[in-house]
Amino acid sequence: VTVPRVAWSIVLLTEFTKRILVGRALRSDRLDDTLLPKRIALPVFASDALSSNAYATQEILVVLALGGASLYSFGAWIAAAVVLVYFVVVASYRQNVHAYPSGGGDYEVVSTNIGARAGVLVASALLVDYVLTVAVSISAGVASLASISEFVETHTVAIALLAIAGITFLNLRGVRESGSLFAIPTYLFMLSIAVMVVSAVIKTFSGQEMLAESAGWTIVEEHSYAGLALVFLLARSFSSGTTALTGIEAIANGVPAFMKPKSKNAATTLLLLGLISTSMFACITWLALKTQVHVTDHNDQLLGIPAGEAQKTVIVQVAEAVFPSSPWLVAEISISTALILVLAANTAFNGFPVLGSVLGRDGYLPRQLHTRGDRLAYSNGILALATMAAVLVFIFRANVSALIQLYIVGVFIAFTLSQIGMVRHWGELLAGNPTDKEVRQMHRSRAINFIGAILTGSVLIIVILTKFTRGAWIVCILIPLLFLLMQAIHRHYEIVSRELALESDDEKVTLPSRVVALVLVSKIHKPTLRALAYARGSRPSVLEAITVNVDPEETKKLMLEWEQRDLPVPLRVLDSPYREITRPVLTYVRNLRRESPRDLVAVYIPQYVVGHWYEHLLHNQSALRLRARLMFSKGVVVVTVPWQLRSSVDRPDRMAPVAAAIRQGEARDETDSP
Amino acid sequence: VTVPRVAWSIVLLTEFTKRILVGRALRSDRLDDTLLPKRIALPVFASDALSSNAYATQEILVVLALGGASLYSFGAWIAAAVVLVYFVVVASYRQNVHAYPSGGGDYEVVSTNIGARAGVLVASALLVDYVLTVAVSISAGVASLASISEFVETHTVAIALLAIAGITFLNLRGVRESGSLFAIPTYLFMLSIAVMVVSAVIKTFSGQEMLAESAGWTIVEEHSYAGLALVFLLARSFSSGTTALTGIEAIANGVPAFMKPKSKNAATTLLLLGLISTSMFACITWLALKTQVHVTDHNDQLLGIPAGEAQKTVIVQVAEAVFPSSPWLVAEISISTALILVLAANTAFNGFPVLGSVLGRDGYLPRQLHTRGDRLAYSNGILALATMAAVLVFIFRANVSALIQLYIVGVFIAFTLSQIGMVRHWGELLAGNPTDKEVRQMHRSRAINFIGAILTGSVLIIVILTKFTRGAWIVCILIPLLFLLMQAIHRHYEIVSRELALESDDEKVTLPSRVVALVLVSKIHKPTLRALAYARGSRPSVLEAITVNVDPEETKKLMLEWEQRDLPVPLRVLDSPYREITRPVLTYVRNLRRESPRDLVAVYIPQYVVGHWYEHLLHNQSALRLRARLMFSKGVVVVTVPWQLRSSVDRPDRMAPVAAAIRQGEARDETDSP
Repeated sequence: VTVPRVAWSIVLLTEFTKRILVGRALRSDRLDDTLLPKRIALPVFASDALSSNAYATQEILVVLALGGASLYSFGAWIAAAVVLVYFVVVASYRQNVHAYPSGGGDYEVVSTNIGARAGVLVASALLVDYVLTVAVSISAGVASLASISEFVETHTVAIALLAIAGITFLNLRGVRESGSLFAIPTYLFMLSIAVMVVSAVIKTFSGQEMLAESAGWTIVEEHSYAGLALVFLLARSFSSGTTALTGIEAIANGVPAFMKPKSKNAATTLLLLGLISTSMFACITWLALKTQVHVTDHNDQLLGIPAGEAQKTVIVQVAEAVFPSSPWLVAEISISTALILVLAANTAFNGFPVLGSVLGRDGYLPRQLHTRGDRLAYSNGILALATMAAVLVFIFRANVSALIQLYIVGVFIAFTLSQIGMVRHWGELLAGNPTDKEVRQMHRSRAINFIGAILTGSVLIIVILTKFTRGAWIVCILIPLLFLLMQAIHRHYEIVSRELALESDDEKVTLPSRVVALVLVSKIHKPTLRALAYARGSRPSVLEAITVNVDPEETKKLMLEWEQRDLPVPLRVLDSPYREITRPVLTYVRNLRRESPRDLVAVYIPQYVVGHWYEHLLHNQSALRLRARLMFSKGVVVVTVPWQLRSSVDRPDRMAPVAAAIRQGEARDETDSP
Repeated sequence: VTVPRVAWSIVLLTEFTKRILVGRALRSDRLDDTLLPKRIALPVFASDALSSNAYATQEILVVLALGGASLYSFGAWIAAAVVLVYFVVVASYRQNVHAYPSGGGDYEVVSTNIGARAGVLVASALLVDYVLTVAVSISAGVASLASISEFVETHTVAIALLAIAGITFLNLRGVRESGSLFAIPTYLFMLSIAVMVVSAVIKTFSGQEMLAESAGWTIVEEHSYAGLALVFLLARSFSSGTTALTGIEAIANGVPAFMKPKSKNAATTLLLLGLISTSMFACITWLALKTQVHVTDHNDQLLGIPAGEAQKTVIVQVAEAVFPSSPWLVAEISISTALILVLAANTAFNGFPVLGSVLGRDGYLPRQLHTRGDRLAYSNGILALATMAAVLVFIFRANVSALIQLYIVGVFIAFTLSQIGMVRHWGELLAGNPTDKEVRQMHRSRAINFIGAILTGSVLIIVILTKFTRGAWIVCILIPLLFLLMQAIHRHYEIVSRELALESDDEKVTLPSRVVALVLVSKIHKPTLRALAYARGSRPSVLEAITVNVDPEETKKLMLEWEQRDLPVPLRVLDSPYREITRPVLTYVRNLRRESPRDLVAVYIPQYVVGHWYEHLLHNQSALRLRARLMFSKGVVVVTVPWQLRSSVDRPDRMAPVAAAIRQGEARDETDSP
């Protein structure tokens, strides 16, 4: 019986935590301004994709460093491979954008075209990846700051956790970025990198030398790789490099937010994003190789690094090499990198609850995640995301190279299944009755998505193979677990809905022949009299007051007073040899039911309504317990007769302003959402 | 509205934790065998008192060491003073035992004779002291083991916390020691110390030298004390020594458990306990001085101690000096010391919830702590005690010398007030009409209690003065806080009871003129039909089904189906522009009430009853929220119509065996308790 309360306790403790954190202002689902021109849409959707350039190059080099500095020469080739994959994925998603102008996220595309189970798999992968996006982005952002500040360097984990807490807080309070607020850090980051690259090009042409501080350090080669081992190492390095692709899919989800013609604008923006992101990636990699940055997983692998110092990020090292005499420019680059990474983490904070709501709608997660009126569902999602990301950051000590091993698997599961779904989509359309021109176009689209599916599928296999033992196994367990959980929830909802469905003869639900009303009495005071009055007012067939004889003394007093006051309802005393309250009442009710099974037993329980939550600790315990137990009996209803204690009347609706604000936010939703 | 749920969430999370920890077997309030002969009563009640000899001597020496080894010569005098106080307190409590053969604990004695407020103060002091008993005993026990095991030494805090967890677990599971189980470690400890003392005496007479390993080490004197400072230091040392007195009061609480003549046997046992305990204390102190044990607060104060080694406890050092060639005997002494200390901690685990229950009965703590049927109340007490003790152990790193600073204040508050109460008790009796013989006896008793009060009061002042800045201030804040909290709870109960009390014209509570029944409908399925049938069966004046229009599509479908099925109840659709469920229903109900205030509105809410707690997360959210809100409206009752999902029927009473076991335990309570 206490079992359902446990569930409550979890739900409610979360609510409590939230009430402490949250003054909960309004929130609208999308940005305030309805439709976005490309120049604003680009930064809004690009922050996630662009931010991965902050660590993609570095992760390629870190893996290559395992085989020594000589392997760095492969860096350019690996980067080229990543760029190739990038463009294939961009081309594929341009097809998605055209096919689903309503904004077909990977989950929609896959569940529509392949099937519900595949859709749930994609959803599991995406949920896990949102968590990793937060963990990796925040860790990389802190690493960027740590490269210029010793304070940050010594408190990496704490600062990363604080950053997650901060973003969570902002998201819980519903402070939402407008498009321009998004635009500033993104353009700043793009500009910073552009300036750096241009300066580097000029310096190169003018023959000035640019060397990273780590250029002279030596990488300790523990193994030298050759043959298959070398291929494997290069594949691993490539896997790490594909982190550059994360975030591409954002535009496909956001098509409805674009100005008309939506699909065309979205496709153009996607292409633009691809061009900007890949050239950024290529330039950073070029500069890293040019300035001879040496980065490794552990300081132990580096000879020459000053004792006690940590390695700086590739971008900061490059910036220092390009602007050796402008520490402020270096700081600016480091900070704008951190900023765009925080923005990327924030994107996950938007995406995660939205996906959760869609999954709630489809019955794969608790239904209430979808209920629109229930704003708290979003906060639940936000808190869940933040907690998991914080745990990851804590476990992996905010180490990007370690976290990156878990990343990408989910992204490429989504990519691959989405492309397969698109291939089927075109196949089905072709089976319809398209015009010749449409047929040609569909064939072309299908071919592109097919190539996309093959390529992303291959990358997925490479990623799993090369990273499995280094951490990807965690994700390879988490995603199926989440998948099974969501299937189980769905099954539960289906079973219940089948159980509740009406069969043909259900309409003749028999009315109860009589109503037996029992009023639970412990003392004669106002709440008791009110309960008695209400019970009498509802004119039941039989009306009894019952009391449990826990303390013979008090029961005697009660009976005496009952008689003296001449109350118009008979009082029945239930014996309780074990001084329990619940069981005697239950037994009595069950006996009543057994004697006349067609009767309805209505148990009237007076309950105090308190104003302060802590007062609840002082009241209502046995009433609540009894109610919970009675629920298990058939033919019984529990009538709760509230008695509002004065404290509850003095401050009945402390949450009123909050509720008003929420409603206002919802009103906006109503008008804003497309 | 979510506010009362917060309280629930706290209550329930605790319950959840307990359900995980506890298979909850039976428990009886006292030991299984009804009445105790002295030879069993002694160890049962003595473990707490005897165990303090494990650290009392050491704490005297530690303080003296601040002034250097030369001050050790005062040790004997301080011990003598402690023994003196001990006997006065024993003599005083023998009066309590005679006066309250029903087992007058300090709380009873004080609240009866001085007043409720003083009683609550004593209760606060006792509650705090139970926590400290656990923290100090466990820390001292682990220190004893740490003296013979390097492993324990390096993991002191963790092992202390584990020990607390273990005792908590045993107490939660209701595994209770029988008298003989209690007796073994107590007699073992007494025997071990006796053997050690006798051997030492023999060795002394045979002229063999006994030197502790620390005999040669030098105490670094930072200050040398003289004059008032010296007096203060000696007073502090004495304060620490009075820890030897903790636990004396146990017998006074336990008089009813003795064989007849109860009071006489109890008084004899108390005297016996005093003799054994003080001689043990005196012998240990003599041996510590004789073997020249040097103990200090920090290793820094000791010259000669091997680097990295911790100091051993006094008892272990003495044992090593007495049995230099029998490491097994030393280990036995160390282990039996640890055992009796664990037993002492366990005593607090019995006393704390019992006192909580008494305070609950008197309305100073939540009432449900007293409800007998509510076994969980005891577990709440146990968990609260364990948590607080664990926090103290953690904060003070299981350091006995640090924890001891917080101890004693509470004990001596209880001692002093109890003795003052006894003085008044005799005064009142004398004011009655006693015989001459009684008068003489009462005068004698009053004199003893008066001396006891003066002496313990003085010690209390000395303890507070000498220890305030070293940690006692924490207790001096905690006890008043607890006092205020309990007063506030009491006040709350009084206000509520006044609010609920009947006034003369209350008996004419007006019956509601009509009953308006509203059945909440979201879909047409079996639970809805059941709710409709029950509502119709109770023949209300007006019956309406209401649904909230959250999704126009679904509402339209619902209305259509309603018409098709030709349900005999009108369906009213409430608009919800903000897609909320709760607010439109509330507004509608309030309007009904406003139109005809004398009507009773009964809101029928179908609610799913689930079998597994986690299923609760998937259902009932909006129903529960609505119910909570409706409770704030007057003239409204909520009729919960349960629908038992199949999962709940398959396993309706998983707790049945547990409940049966609890009932069995209660049955024993019934028969056992005096």
